This record gives sequence, structure tokens and C-alpha cells, in this order.
Amino acid sequence: MAEASRTSEARRDAVFGRWVVFSPARSRRPTDLKSHNPTGNPSPGPGAGAPKPSCPFCAGRESECAPQIFRVPPDDALPWRIRVIENLYPALRRDIEPPPEPEVVDGEAEAEEQPGELAVRGFGFHDVVIETPRHDVRLWDLGAEGVRDVLLAYAARVRQLREHPAVKYVQVFKNHGASAGASMAHSHSQMLGTPFVPPSVTSRLNCMKEVFDRSGNCSLCEISSKDTLISETPNFSAIVPFAASYPFEIWIIPQQHLSYFHEIDEDKALDLGSLLKTMLQKLSKQLNDPPFNFMIHSAPFRLSSSCLPYTHWFLQIVPQLSVIGGFELGSGCYINPVFPEDAAKILRELDCS
Amino acid sequence: MAEASRTSEARRDAVFGRWVVFSPARSRRPTDLKSHNPTGNPSPGPGAGAPKPSCPFCAGRESECAPQIFRVPPDDALPWRIRVIENLYPALRRDIEPPPEPEVVDGEAEAEEQPGELAVRGFGFHDVVIETPRHDVRLWDLGAEGVRDVLLAYAARVRQLREHPAVKYVQVFKNHGASAGASMAHSHSQMLGTPFVPPSVTSRLNCMKEVFDRSGNCSLCEISSKDTLISETPNFSAIVPFAASYPFEIWIIPQQHLSYFHEIDEDKALDLGSLLKTMLQKLSKQLNDPPFNFMIHSAPFRLSSSCLPYTHWFLQIVPQLSVIGGFELGSGCYINPVFPEDAAKILRELDCS
Ligand SMILES: Nc1ncnc2c1ncn2[C@@H]1O[C@H](COP(=O)(O)OP(=O)(O)O[C@H]2O[C@H](CO)[C@@H](O)[C@H](O)[C@H]2O)[C@@H](O)[C@H]1O
Ligand SMILES: Nc1ncnc2c1ncn2[C@@H]1O[C@H](COP(=O)(O)OP(=O)(O)O[C@H]2O[C@H](CO)[C@@H](O)[C@H](O)[C@H]2O)[C@@H](O)[C@H]1O
Repeated sequence: MAEASRTSEARRDAVFGRWVVFSPARSRRPTDLKSHNPTGNPSPGPGAGAPKPSCPFCAGRESECAPQIFRVPPDDALPWRIRVIENLYPALRRDIEPPPEPEVVDGEAEAEEQPGELAVRGFGFHDVVIETPRHDVRLWDLGAEGVRDVLLAYAARVRQLREHPAVKYVQVFKNHGASAGASMAHSHSQMLGTPFVPPSVTSRLNCMKEVFDRSGNCSLCEISSKDTLISETPNFSAIVPFAASYPFEIWIIPQQHLSYFHEIDEDKALDLGSLLKTMLQKLSKQLNDPPFNFMIHSAPFRLSSSCLPYTHWFLQIVPQLSVIGGFELGSGCYINPVFPEDAAKILRELDCS
Repeated sequence: MAEASRTSEARRDAVFGRWVVFSPARSRRPTDLKSHNPTGNPSPGPGAGAPKPSCPFCAGRESECAPQIFRVPPDDALPWRIRVIENLYPALRRDIEPPPEPEVVDGEAEAEEQPGELAVRGFGFHDVVIETPRHDVRLWDLGAEGVRDVLLAYAARVRQLREHPAVKYVQVFKNHGASAGASMAHSHSQMLGTPFVPPSVTSRLNCMKEVFDRSGNCSLCEISSKDTLISETPNFSAIVPFAASYPFEIWIIPQQHLSYFHEIDEDKALDLGSLLKTMLQKLSKQLNDPPFNFMIHSAPFRLSSSCLPYTHWFLQIVPQLSVIGGFELGSGCYINPVFPEDAAKILRELDCS
């Protein structure tokens, strides 16, 4: 169906339970306000991305960074390709006492589960993954092996954080471009280990549980990707989700039902690395290097085994092409001017091999 | 407690059940990316805000707008002060058939309540409220009576939309400034009447119900505003919420327990109008005319009477001072560099009378 012939439609997804309004007509509205620079940051490539003497993430400036956690390769005699370091301006702090474990009263719900206002010490881990020693290289400029190694570094660090009994969840994410929130141009990602299960994780699990309880199926195993498939590898599918909140949003989903990202092995990480590289290349070429975020949605640690049948990790890529307004902030419902079927078609057509 | 002496803290609120990480240290991180123009749009005032010949919201250009729904004053012989019109590029459309009412099976949960993927026709109402005929006047430049009349226009339109059996909720909101999503500079707000209850409304109701079930109290009646009160009128309190997601976020809460905004009367609307005007003036003066959104959080229509004890409407004002990144998008948890107590103090101190 061509874009012109489509009319508005509201869709609810089976993973977050979110409503999205698809409205191609919206993209034709005029504006008399200067909107964001869609690219957001100095466009990379010759010149703009050249090594920057003041960048603490560049090779040779390691002493200006917060402490290193590990590097790839581990051997200090070799130059590093990836560094996992502490965030110098952490949102949560590893050096304070974790909040006390909630007491279990009479085998009843944990105290923590009580609703209402709550304040806990800002304990947690906030790390940065420097994806390359070079200022002018973007994640998708690395070979598939290079992207694999970044993914394996995420996984290795998540496994370390899992060992801490007070860490309930680790959010792995990447900001690229100023409009996607990035404050540093040098290619990097971040992760935050939190002493609570974040709200979107709870609502995702609740929604997937409801679907599972009714249908016996995992929402993500069931995704009908026919119309919205962009590309497949032996282990992963890249799709535009049925109820994408954002134009050209992409999900990369393991075909096997797996709850935890951090259990990924080298082969699958290579497979994912090559697919992620291709998707980021497609976005960059097709949408003129847009600012974007990606997030890995995994399961909280120490989940009871009864939850495993409906938890399935995936990676979400969100190009930042429009600005969130009061409707989205107030209602939690998004307006997307691009139908997933149309976005998938456009992303499918571009050949990045 | 001075900002410098504060360390990170995580807080969960009792209305949305959201976690927020407060981290003053974050505001000191450097950036090598050009970030948004905080003001977002051409700053109003002499020059920039002058009448604009091409603006369809200005007096004299009514014919370039989508159809009018009503105006204030109603008498066409008098010049209008407020116009409520259809949105020319609506996200949801009033001219298509509403989705069929879900059947009630054996008195069981409505079919609609079933989880999983769902698509419905994009029926709904999308209106614009032009708050003034003048291009160079902002909402808070109007007198308290002028703001009252805008609020009464919202309420009157919401009451009209409530009459439609397929409209489940109306989200009233305002975008000011490009970084807050506004595409039109002329002072206006919008409302969307949706054929479903939006996700944030559902989670707000669920959270407030949980608190009520445990404590017997309404989360908003219970708000301890001691530390974070900015200002009070006979009927409303303006506070920075205990777990504000955004720096300098403000909530204006009716002191009486009331579920529905649209039942507001003239006296209370005047009271609210004067408080809203003061808060917007404070934000504009104290934070250098930031882009902002405000949203009215009311109850869904035709709520069963058992829900009324824990539903309490309020108005949320969110200045857009920072950019959302991958952590917030992925986890639903926000990082706020400004503690509510500090924001309230700053907002309290400025005298706008
Ligand atoms: N010398 C050094 N050593 C170690 N670390 C250093 C460092 N210099 C800077 N850093 C850290 O490097 C990180 C770079 O991160 P990003 O550019 O992805 O976005 P940032 O976290 O600033 O904020 C974006 O992402 C967060 C989380 O989504 C949002 O809250 C925020 O609004 C958005 O702008 C910063 O967190 C900074 O603290
Ligand atoms: N001649 C005319 N007659 C009638 N109506 C006219 C008109 N010309 C323009 N309009 C309408 O006026 C509205 C102006 O609204 P705003 O400036 O508040 O933001 P907009 O809705 O564009 O998008 C922002 O808010 C929405 C909702 O939050 C977000 O989805 C989006 O990303 C963000 O940019 C537009 O919706 C437009 O369709």
C-alpha cells in the first residue's frame, strides 16, 4: 500500500503495550519555527571527525579519563581497541553503600514492592565503553569483528555487574549526535547498573506476561515480521516493529528464545555485529546520518524461572527525526508519521553490502 | 541542604510509579557537541514576536485555518480572543468511523483489554486552541482573566468531546518552543480525544490505585509539599514533585480531591489561571524563556465510581532543558541533575507579582 493511500491508524504493540498513532498526513504540516538540526552534531567524515586534541576518549589521553575497568585486547603491550571505563560524572555511584535489601515479611511481597514515594541512596554503576581509539571512526565504520568485540565487551561488563547482589538491572545504551543526547562526539556507549528494576522493564515484563498467559506464546517469538522485515542473518532478524513509536525505528531480535543478552557467545555476537553494522549504515545513508540511540532490552537479573518463557532480549535502534511534544509526554502515546511497512520497504531497498 | 553537599539519590514517585535518579554531579560534565539552542525558538518580545503575515493563527487569516469549533466571545460581531479550531493535519480523524465497541463477553473483561498486537482505525479528535489573536503575545502575557478563559475553553471543548461515546480520554497539552516540539510560534495549545485510554494514563491510575489500596489515601492529596512548595492560592498548590523527572518540573494540583479537570468552574479557573501565569513567568524569567510543555492529567471518561477516590487531576509543566538519551528511552527512568528542593527554592525566590 502506497503512503498516499494510507489513512490514520492506531496500533498497540505486544511488548510494551504502548499505543502509537500512525498519521502520514502529519508529515505535511508546515512550520514557522526553526527546528533542530536533524544531524545534530558535526557531520563525521573528513575534517569534522579528525582526531581532536582535547578529547579524553582518544588514544594517548587515557590519563584524563576516569579509571579503566578493562580493555581489549587485555595485553597492555598492545594498543587498545576498546576501553571500558568508569563514567567521570556518574549518575549513580559505586562508592556509596547500596540500599539495604528489602526484608521479606512472612514470605509476603518484598517491602520494596510497596507502592508510594520512596527514596534510596544513589548507589549503582555508570560505565562508558570507548568503542575505538580513533576520534574519526564511527561504530559502523568498524568491521563486523570490531562491532562484535564491542558487543562482547558490553556482555563481559554486564556479567561482572551481575555479580553484585544489589544490582538489579543493567541498561546498555548508545547516544549518537547531540539531538540524541550525546555530549561526547567520540564513538562510545554507556551502561548503568541500577539498584532497582527500571519502570519500562517492569511494564515490558508485565505486558509480555499478559500475552503469554493468554496465548502461551512469547510476544517476540511470535512477531510476524513478514511485512516489516528488513534483513535476516542465521541468528537474528532486523524488523521495523508493528507499532514502532518512532519513524524508522528498528528492532534486532534473536530468533532463538533467549532472556539475557549477556549470555551471547562469540559466533552470535559476530552475527549480531554484522547486522547492527548494516542497520546503522542503512540509517546513516538513507536518512542522512541522523542522531540515534540504541538500547539493549534484556531481563532483570535473578529472575524467577517462571518468567523465562516470556522474556526475550532485543536491541532497539531509534533514529531521532522528530521532537517529542506534550501529547507524547502526557499520554505516553506516540504519533508516528511513517507506517512500519513503508519504513521497512525503504530500509530494505538500500543495499549496504 | 546546599547543592554541593548533595550526593546521588534515586526516588520513586507515588503518581506514575517512576524512578528518577538525582545527580547534581551530572551537570558538570563537559561537552564537545553543540547542543540545542535552549530557547529553541526566536525569542519573543520586540521584533521576533511581531505579527507575521504568513501565520494562519493571526487575526484576519481565519480563512486559512481548518474549521472553527467555537470562539470566545461567541458573538461574531466582536473580535475574537480565543478560537478553538480543528487541526488541519490531524493525527486522529473525526471523519472516519470509530472503532467498534468491544463486546462484553459474559460480563467478563472487555475484548479490548486483551493483551497483544492490536490495530484500530485512526478515529479521534485533534483540535487546536488559539490562545490570542496576536502573534506577539504569549500565554503568560495575558491577564489572569485571559488565562482563565483559555482554561475554560479547554474545559468546554473537553465536555463536548466527552459526549462522543467512542472518545475515552482527552489529552490537553501545550508545546512552546521548537525543542518542545512546537511547529507554530503563535501561542496555542492542542487537545487529542483518543478512542483508547493512553498508556501513561493507565499506569498513573494503576499506581494511584495501588497506593490507595495500601494506604487508603490519594497520592496527590497526600503529597507532602513542605520542602517543594513554590506557591499556593486558595484552591491550588504549585510544587516541584518529590521525584520530578525533569529539572524545574512543576505540578499545579487542586487542593480539593477532584477527578476531572473539565468540571472546573469560573472561580477556580481564575485561581488556576493566575497561578499558571505566575509559574510560566517564573520559568521564563528564571530560566531564560526555556522551551516547555504543559499537560493536563485528568481521568478517563466514564470511570467507574470505585476509581474516583484515587483519581485526582493536575497540570504538569515541563521545561525542556536537557535532551533525553538512551538511558531514559530504554529504561523509562530519568536522570535529573537538579534536586526538587533546590528547584523549588529557586522558583520560590523570584517575585513575579
Ligand atoms: N574524561 C572522562 N572520563 C570518563 N567519562 C567521561 C569523561 N568525560 C565525559 N565523560 C562521560 O562520558 C559520557 C558521554 O555520554 P553521552 O555523550 O552518551 O551522553 P551523556 O551521558 O552526557 O548524556 C546523555 O545521556 C544521558 C543518559 O541517557 C541523559 O541523561 C542526558 O540527558 C543525555 O544528554 C558522559 O556521561 C560523561 O559523564
Ligand atoms: N492552518 C492551520 N489550521 C489548523 N491547524 C493548523 C494549521 N497550520 C498548522 N496547524 C496545526 O497546528 C499545530 C501546531 O502544533 P504545535 O506547534 O504545538 O506542534 P505539532 O502538533 O506541530 O507537533 C508537536 O507536537 C506533537 C504532539 O505532541 C508531536 O507529535 C510532534 O512531534 C511535535 O513536533 C500542528 O499540529 C498543525 O498541524
